Amino acid sequence: MSLDIFFNPKTIAIVGVSRNPNKIGHIIFKNLIYAGFKEALYIVNPNAEEILDMKSYRAVTEIKEKVDLAIIAVPAESVIKVVEQCGKKQIKQVVIVSSGFSEIGNAKLEEDLKKALQKHKISAIGPNCLGIYDAYTKINTMFLPSFKMNTPKKGFTALVSQSGAVGSALLDLASKKGHGISKFISYGNAADIDESDILEYLALDENTKVISIYIEGLKNGKKFMQTAKRVSKIKPIIALKGGITEASKQATISHTGSLAGTPEIYKKAFKQAGIIEVFSLEDLFIHARVLERSIVPQGNRTMVITVSGGYGILVLDELYRNNIPLAEFSKESVNLLKKQLPGIATIANPLDLTGGAANETYKLAIETALNDKNIDIVIVVLLYQIPLLTQEIVKIISDLNAMAKKPILVVATGGDLTEKIKDQLEKNNVVCLEFPEQAADAVKYLAEYSKIKTSK
Amino acid sequence: MSLDIFFNPKTIAIVGVSRNPNKIGHIIFKNLIYAGFKEALYIVNPNAEEILDMKSYRAVTEIKEKVDLAIIAVPAESVIKVVEQCGKKQIKQVVIVSSGFSEIGNAKLEEDLKKALQKHKISAIGPNCLGIYDAYTKINTMFLPSFKMNTPKKGFTALVSQSGAVGSALLDLASKKGHGISKFISYGNAADIDESDILEYLALDENTKVISIYIEGLKNGKKFMQTAKRVSKIKPIIALKGGITEASKQATISHTGSLAGTPEIYKKAFKQAGIIEVFSLEDLFIHARVLERSIVPQGNRTMVITVSGGYGILVLDELYRNNIPLAEFSKESVNLLKKQLPGIATIANPLDLTGGAANETYKLAIETALNDKNIDIVIVVLLYQIPLLTQEIVKIISDLNAMAKKPILVVATGGDLTEKIKDQLEKNNVVCLEFPEQAADAVKYLAEYSKIKTSK
Repeated sequence: MSLDIFFNPKTIAIVGVSRNPNKIGHIIFKNLIYAGFKEALYIVNPNAEEILDMKSYRAVTEIKEKVDLAIIAVPAESVIKVVEQCGKKQIKQVVIVSSGFSEIGNAKLEEDLKKALQKHKISAIGPNCLGIYDAYTKINTMFLPSFKMNTPKKGFTALVSQSGAVGSALLDLASKKGHGISKFISYGNAADIDESDILEYLALDENTKVISIYIEGLKNGKKFMQTAKRVSKIKPIIALKGGITEASKQATISHTGSLAGTPEIYKKAFKQAGIIEVFSLEDLFIHARVLERSIVPQGNRTMVITVSGGYGILVLDELYRNNIPLAEFSKESVNLLKKQLPGIATIANPLDLTGGAANETYKLAIETALNDKNIDIVIVVLLYQIPLLTQEIVKIISDLNAMAKKPILVVATGGDLTEKIKDQLEKNNVVCLEFPEQAADAVKYLAEYSKIKTSK
Repeated sequence: MSLDIFFNPKTIAIVGVSRNPNKIGHIIFKNLIYAGFKEALYIVNPNAEEILDMKSYRAVTEIKEKVDLAIIAVPAESVIKVVEQCGKKQIKQVVIVSSGFSEIGNAKLEEDLKKALQKHKISAIGPNCLGIYDAYTKINTMFLPSFKMNTPKKGFTALVSQSGAVGSALLDLASKKGHGISKFISYGNAADIDESDILEYLALDENTKVISIYIEGLKNGKKFMQTAKRVSKIKPIIALKGGITEASKQATISHTGSLAGTPEIYKKAFKQAGIIEVFSLEDLFIHARVLERSIVPQGNRTMVITVSGGYGILVLDELYRNNIPLAEFSKESVNLLKKQLPGIATIANPLDLTGGAANETYKLAIETALNDKNIDIVIVVLLYQIPLLTQEIVKIISDLNAMAKKPILVVATGGDLTEKIKDQLEKNNVVCLEFPEQAADAVKYLAEYSKIKTSK
């Protein structure tokens, strides 16, 4: 099913726009004006003639022009009536942000809603959701005031979240960190469009290179796993499963059609479906970005180039915990490095260039690692505090990265100047991590995806 | 042993100040001028009359005035000669930044250095180290150009690091994040002053509320553990042990007098000594800060107040992994909350105030949790994106925190505005974390310290 019109509607009706600026319909209305949709908007409120200088309609059926998408923000008990009116008006896409359905026990109301949607062949996201955001078209159905949160720039990670707040907080953080996003989808109760439909759609979305998902419980586990198995061959899916305590497990099991069970069952199912599982929101945030930007390695033999013994050891420790093999330089590389870097005591892994390293030392070491057939992934510890490094290092690493056929992962910890260097590297598509362990974890996930991609 | 004069010298000689601005002695010289020590400085270089308009001495013995501290930055083979001259000149404190001793196999040279130090009763930090930084007195012996890294403001965490680069990178990061530091000590080979001496000193340092340590191998494990056992009753010690791979284990074992062995042995030893062990540099950075700012809880029963179901679940999941019990509201609290918050469906843990929460809703919930005897620690998920929250929430939480007799841990994820709110909260000494799992980990470490503090 294509969800294209959801993300690129020519005309939008918002149903339930209150005069009260704190009400969700009003917030969505303002956000869409702010996002540049003023000319495309129709607002519906049976009790108002005009809101913020815009004509208000009594019902969608009163709008004369064609409407591509309706955003429904009325109380739960009025949603079905609005859906019926959308049906009459031939609106085929609706986002239902209203809550008050199965999530508070109103299963009957949700069933009736489903029937109404099916009757009129309407595709729906929701109810009980934040809806969607698209960084390219700027469509935004989130009822969070735009002066309170920023939306990220264009990028290639799709964020799918059962929890609206988890999604919107990550979007706001992404904007701050300069991370890009393709699409955001908070699908709530999934009365119609569910996780599998979304995966299916994002698999072919050309702006999406990686799909990151926060899931609490699945509506239809089998369908999801089958879909994920296909989609994960096309692009990486990285997922965080929330709800591993007894209490939340109970809640999941009681959902009809949910994939019930322990974290272990999810772990196994995710693995079979080719989904990369992470165990914290921070890891979901960081490693979706890594998967978006990195090329897929051919294997997992990792070389660590460092200028600090401590950082080398800390990366090695985490690689060890992650069961990642250390690469060894070939004889040719060893000879080359010995000749070109006479000041380095031992050519080993980690390769410690020492605090006396200059731009050219890094260049030689990284180049040698990239050319070495015994190495699949290169971690570069870049501590910009050391004396001889200059701004030029950005161009050196960016150029090497642009030509590289294996992933380069830069670790850089520091203050303003380090942040500046990292920003420039990131603009040139170099993957940068803040802490040594994060780079070693990135290796784990990249190697995992390499296996998924090549498995049958 | 008091190390006071190291951190507050009236006069300082830098031995080995080259004309070359990239050499370490020169960098230290410039950094100390930049830090305001110009009037206190003497520089020594046998081959120069003047460097940067300052008179250069041929040897410390030529300086007429009393010298409190010498910073030695000459090649390894000249260090002992300089130490002898310091002896003659009655300089009792030296920081030896020079490398080229036991770390590259020159054990004999280090033994001779030890003897020279003992002969003249000189206290020494190093060799092979970055030395010290004090955010209060501004003394700084790090040979990293000050235009390339920032130093943090005054705070209450001491950072002790065997690895210089690990320490300086964290200092630079701390400056960026607005975290304060009391003292930084990079002690290198510990030919004289070792980890235990430093612990002993920091235990009584009034600017230090928490000691964070990065350790690779211990010189004298037994002494360290005995010291830590005492010091950890006075203030928290949080440590990261680097080097768990076979290769680095071998290196540790081959050190005479080191506490050799597996990560398991360290784990057990740390536990016995009352040291809080972390397993990543990020955790060392984040949780030292938490321990610095939080009061010590009486127990570990934790209440989660949230406005997002997803965040509540993610905090609970990590509490569960950490084996932390969920607190239950007392009957009185339940009744109070039911009455005052009629919109909240269930009074449970997590207490979900929903996205409709306002400042006053938070105030009531936090206040009730603080007054409830069944609760030891309160986690507050503060998602500033939700519509009704205003700036006023900073004062509300800060005031509650100032009066609280139990820890409040705020989790806030977001962009510019969220950062602003967090900065203000942090200025008022409220502990803020970025991701839900970090708050649950903070509970683990706080609870661990509560046990350490009260154990016999």
